[in-house]
Amino acid sequence: MTTSTRQTTTPHPGTDVAMPDAAAPQASEPRSTEQLTDLGQGLRAATGGRYGPVRDLARASVPAEVMVRDASLDMAGARAWTNEALRSLVRYGMAGSGFPTTVGGLDDVGRSCVDFEMTAHGDLSLTVKSGVHFGLYGGAVTALGNEWHHETFLRPNLALEQIGCYAMTEFGHGSDVASLQTTHTYDPETDEIVVHSPTPSSTKTYIGAAAQDAHVAAVYGQLHVGEESHGVHVVVVPIRDADGNPLPGVTLGDNGAKGGLAGVDNGTITFDHVRVPRAHLLNRFGGIDDEGRYVSDIDSDNKRFFTMLGTLVRGRICVAAGAATASRKALSIATRYALRRRQFSAPGHDGDVVLMDYLAHQRKLIPAIATAYAHTFAVNEVVERLQELHEMPEKDQVAQRELETRAAGLKAVITRFGNDTIQTCREACGGAGYLAENGLTVLRGDADVFATFEGDNTVLLQLVAKGLLSGYKEMWGDLDMRGMVQFAARTFGGQFVEATAARPLIERLRTAAARKGEGETLLDRGWQLAMFADRERHVLETLATRLRRRADDQDSFEAFNSAQDHVLLAARTHMDRVVLEAFVAGIEECEDEQVREVLDRLCTLHALTSIDADSGWFQAHNRMSAGRAKAVVAQINELCAELRPQVLDLVEGLGIPETWLNSQMLQDDTSARWTPGADV
Amino acid sequence: MTTSTRQTTTPHPGTDVAMPDAAAPQASEPRSTEQLTDLGQGLRAATGGRYGPVRDLARASVPAEVMVRDASLDMAGARAWTNEALRSLVRYGMAGSGFPTTVGGLDDVGRSCVDFEMTAHGDLSLTVKSGVHFGLYGGAVTALGNEWHHETFLRPNLALEQIGCYAMTEFGHGSDVASLQTTHTYDPETDEIVVHSPTPSSTKTYIGAAAQDAHVAAVYGQLHVGEESHGVHVVVVPIRDADGNPLPGVTLGDNGAKGGLAGVDNGTITFDHVRVPRAHLLNRFGGIDDEGRYVSDIDSDNKRFFTMLGTLVRGRICVAAGAATASRKALSIATRYALRRRQFSAPGHDGDVVLMDYLAHQRKLIPAIATAYAHTFAVNEVVERLQELHEMPEKDQVAQRELETRAAGLKAVITRFGNDTIQTCREACGGAGYLAENGLTVLRGDADVFATFEGDNTVLLQLVAKGLLSGYKEMWGDLDMRGMVQFAARTFGGQFVEATAARPLIERLRTAAARKGEGETLLDRGWQLAMFADRERHVLETLATRLRRRADDQDSFEAFNSAQDHVLLAARTHMDRVVLEAFVAGIEECEDEQVREVLDRLCTLHALTSIDADSGWFQAHNRMSAGRAKAVVAQINELCAELRPQVLDLVEGLGIPETWLNSQMLQDDTSARWTPGADV
Repeated sequence: MTTSTRQTTTPHPGTDVAMPDAAAPQASEPRSTEQLTDLGQGLRAATGGRYGPVRDLARASVPAEVMVRDASLDMAGARAWTNEALRSLVRYGMAGSGFPTTVGGLDDVGRSCVDFEMTAHGDLSLTVKSGVHFGLYGGAVTALGNEWHHETFLRPNLALEQIGCYAMTEFGHGSDVASLQTTHTYDPETDEIVVHSPTPSSTKTYIGAAAQDAHVAAVYGQLHVGEESHGVHVVVVPIRDADGNPLPGVTLGDNGAKGGLAGVDNGTITFDHVRVPRAHLLNRFGGIDDEGRYVSDIDSDNKRFFTMLGTLVRGRICVAAGAATASRKALSIATRYALRRRQFSAPGHDGDVVLMDYLAHQRKLIPAIATAYAHTFAVNEVVERLQELHEMPEKDQVAQRELETRAAGLKAVITRFGNDTIQTCREACGGAGYLAENGLTVLRGDADVFATFEGDNTVLLQLVAKGLLSGYKEMWGDLDMRGMVQFAARTFGGQFVEATAARPLIERLRTAAARKGEGETLLDRGWQLAMFADRERHVLETLATRLRRRADDQDSFEAFNSAQDHVLLAARTHMDRVVLEAFVAGIEECEDEQVREVLDRLCTLHALTSIDADSGWFQAHNRMSAGRAKAVVAQINELCAELRPQVLDLVEGLGIPETWLNSQMLQDDTSARWTPGADV
Repeated sequence: MTTSTRQTTTPHPGTDVAMPDAAAPQASEPRSTEQLTDLGQGLRAATGGRYGPVRDLARASVPAEVMVRDASLDMAGARAWTNEALRSLVRYGMAGSGFPTTVGGLDDVGRSCVDFEMTAHGDLSLTVKSGVHFGLYGGAVTALGNEWHHETFLRPNLALEQIGCYAMTEFGHGSDVASLQTTHTYDPETDEIVVHSPTPSSTKTYIGAAAQDAHVAAVYGQLHVGEESHGVHVVVVPIRDADGNPLPGVTLGDNGAKGGLAGVDNGTITFDHVRVPRAHLLNRFGGIDDEGRYVSDIDSDNKRFFTMLGTLVRGRICVAAGAATASRKALSIATRYALRRRQFSAPGHDGDVVLMDYLAHQRKLIPAIATAYAHTFAVNEVVERLQELHEMPEKDQVAQRELETRAAGLKAVITRFGNDTIQTCREACGGAGYLAENGLTVLRGDADVFATFEGDNTVLLQLVAKGLLSGYKEMWGDLDMRGMVQFAARTFGGQFVEATAARPLIERLRTAAARKGEGETLLDRGWQLAMFADRERHVLETLATRLRRRADDQDSFEAFNSAQDHVLLAARTHMDRVVLEAFVAGIEECEDEQVREVLDRLCTLHALTSIDADSGWFQAHNRMSAGRAKAVVAQINELCAELRPQVLDLVEGLGIPETWLNSQMLQDDTSARWTPGADV
């Protein structure tokens, strides 16, 4: 069952944005002095959500030097810069927000996502390094450990005295976490756990901070107690001494240069019977008692595994937030450039034409800006929902599953959009876009990894489909083919058509539109919402029918595989609806009429662009006539023209301070190089 | 009027592939020993074309060390490696093929494109550096100079004693070449030309080899003789002495790190009244006589300008060839990985499932392989056509315009496909795909620039539309808005529906299919061809009508701009047809039945994938029913399943020697790291 997140949100700015005194920036710090237009400021306010004040504070207090890295630094220099910047994050209170208050945190997991997001406005190496250290390592200790673990491991983490890494992925298994091969074997003789890499393919790889900096690792492995195996558990294992030397039994490697993230030292870890005290097992959901027996409140190995994996939800939300920010940043750079750069004279026009005035350029950037706004609202919703569920005294399993599903789906669709959009922006800046000093190629290379880390996008979309088929009632694994086929047969209902956000409003709009059908204008929000919901319903119903027909097949791989494209389509159409409804709900909360009008236009542009992209489907399924399909394109062009005069406000509203854009071509002192007015 | 290139092709292998003795590789050189399957070998033979033996020779004789660069080299190391590799290219006869025979060349411009293409199988920095030196600089001297220029500048070029660069782009103007601001002013007192950068925005930028290595530059600028300006001309200007120091009046800068191409030293050049002898003006189309008067066989400044720009055609063909190769390489890496990498167990199956067996993975890679084959044939056609026109005693202006149009269009569509495909391949390899050592991120970063250099893709597609509207009868500038609107009114006929290649066959197939309409099977080549041709015809006719209606508008910018998306669509649909017809013509030349059958299947997969991508258009314009639109998707899945068993042969056929893939994860000695069979 889906629930509305908007309705249960209690905005409480002021109280929950206060930072610990120790972390507060000094009054003498340089502060950015952005001059925004009223509309730009209004758009920022409208997209800030519950954590708007946290975002405003970061923008106002953190100087660009902390946030942006010199693109010419080599790998060693970038790694050093990142470590230094990590210290600044602590100083500015942008670290450990999700930790328990007992160890200096704020117990605010939503805010920890916002901290991650704000670093992504600057440099993604810093984002990922801090995300690994505070979010993944610190988050695993927080969520899977007990108070002793918190006291022992989180305090030195927050003080940066002990750098942490998150050792899940192995050469042999990434997406398939259940099949990891590292072993955690309990030795009752010494009351220790022996951590071991039994095969070449069990070596941990791509582990951020493993190559150079990490002192300690949260290691995923199969727990063996006595004769029995209890599945994947996490053990905290020291891997380096204070001087940075590998500890006995630990072999560390460097993954070397990557497609980006030069400042993150990804590496490999191989364990040769490394012993740690039994207490190092993070035992919130399953541990070993003083008698050396395995104990857990959760009976089923499977359920325990998925409960532990559920803690991944924050990482995926963070990646979605980071990718959404990367898109906003790329669009900010390319749009600002398009407003300065001129090329080709036009008959009857003074001077060369500003790039932004070409229809083709508008079509490249303005619909993408609209979708970037949609993603901003969708991310806010899931970040706030994460914290709401965290604050609930009683855990709601279905709500938790729904959140996990949505986080997986948003991560997949937002990172896909991010990679495509950053590339579009880089190309829209011509040769200048290719120079590292202008920020776009670095951003593209850095953000690229989001497509495959914290869950491969193709795998994640399959999780979404499974969540939908089971009505969020089942625990989900990363890719359980038999499960997916069986859920379709057993449990699929029809609950998916409920609105995900601002439910009464959205249902009212949809119902009104349904009465008019194609008679409704393209601008009608109800018609747009109904199109998205109807497509999702149809795709999901036909998928369920198709899988159900094959539920008794001996070969469930073949049954699953033959419908895999349908599975992915179901997930995508669901996420399209979730994103659109988040946009609509976000507008509903906006009280500034001028801002609201602009957001309304952006929302329509986003919706029509999505409908146009899927025009083949809508027509093939008799959801849109040929005439209407053509009218959609004309309407998109018209909306671009309408939004063109406000495009600078729109990118101001995207929220990246200009000094954090780190793009040489936008600096005043060099713009004379190409401003035609200066030289003709 | 379009003409068939296939019909006039005379294959003459053996004679025209002989290399000068001095450049022949030594017998003692290490040679790659590729073991191909019969089908893989047959596919290579079928896609080799006129220059197949040149390609085979390069693959067989050039060792991987020459072709692939260590991904961990920093910028300085990469630049040094590239310079060293440049020497090897000369040694292996892969340089200067397009130069006149009088100076040691082969007078074979088609072959020079193939040399460029073959370097792209290895490292794109080497490709671009050699392309700038031999192709752009050497090509400008060859095409725009006289015998004295050839003797004086090409001999030291081929001997690598004088590194050349191509100084066209300025900060202020890239796409708009006619508006360049650098001045070439004739001084009759000293009989010299004064080369000058009069404004900050006239500084040359992004110039390959300018930052570090180039001794001499082909400089584009406005020629002034007496009181008159004669438009853009090219002057050869020494910029560095033999020790690498900038010459007096020349200021050189370094563009620094870029999105890729670490081995290419792009930089800036500013001229402060630099004097060169009058003889340094490349004067084939316009020069200064001994009396100091401007002389030219071409009366119109405009016509002369476009004739000179016509020499850009080879550069664009080379970029298309390079991008096509980059796609083939990425697909080779990702497919080979997908055949080794396993993830997730499947009920009832032994071991984890090979990635290539997932439908979603097949859909990512196999249709892209099919399109890569299509592009291979399309590139061959245009490369061979270039040489045919070069060999013709009488110049055919319309044929030349058509070639220029096609080169521009192929460059745009193939580089777009390249960037998308390399990214798909990188993501299909998960975390491993993100490591530089596995080759994909380096390739992606390097190939990225193809989208905007040698003509911005958006600008190039507009050239294509203009060529179509004018029936190739007009000279074309880079973006002439008034011209485009007026051509539509004046000259547009209907000649575009003629087949571009293998005309009788294609027209026969189309005609047969037209009689049956939707009754025809999706597999019918005639139906596919008719769909592409009909779409192009409709888009172009409606574009012409739309522009014609506004031909008298005062504001021709507005008239052009409001239809810009339509202009781009016209160009794309034309190029889609050109590419498909090249594929069909290529198959027609293949005599091996087994190979032909596979190519047929690939061609259908390519065609249906393209139709599916444009499904919205075909339905909105009543060219395809809803039922047929759905059937296309099912047929694509079926074709993927049919081609799955041959997918290794398919990538062998793409023609990149395995040792040139430069992908650590495909090396035998490291594959044990993750081959599940080795560790369970």
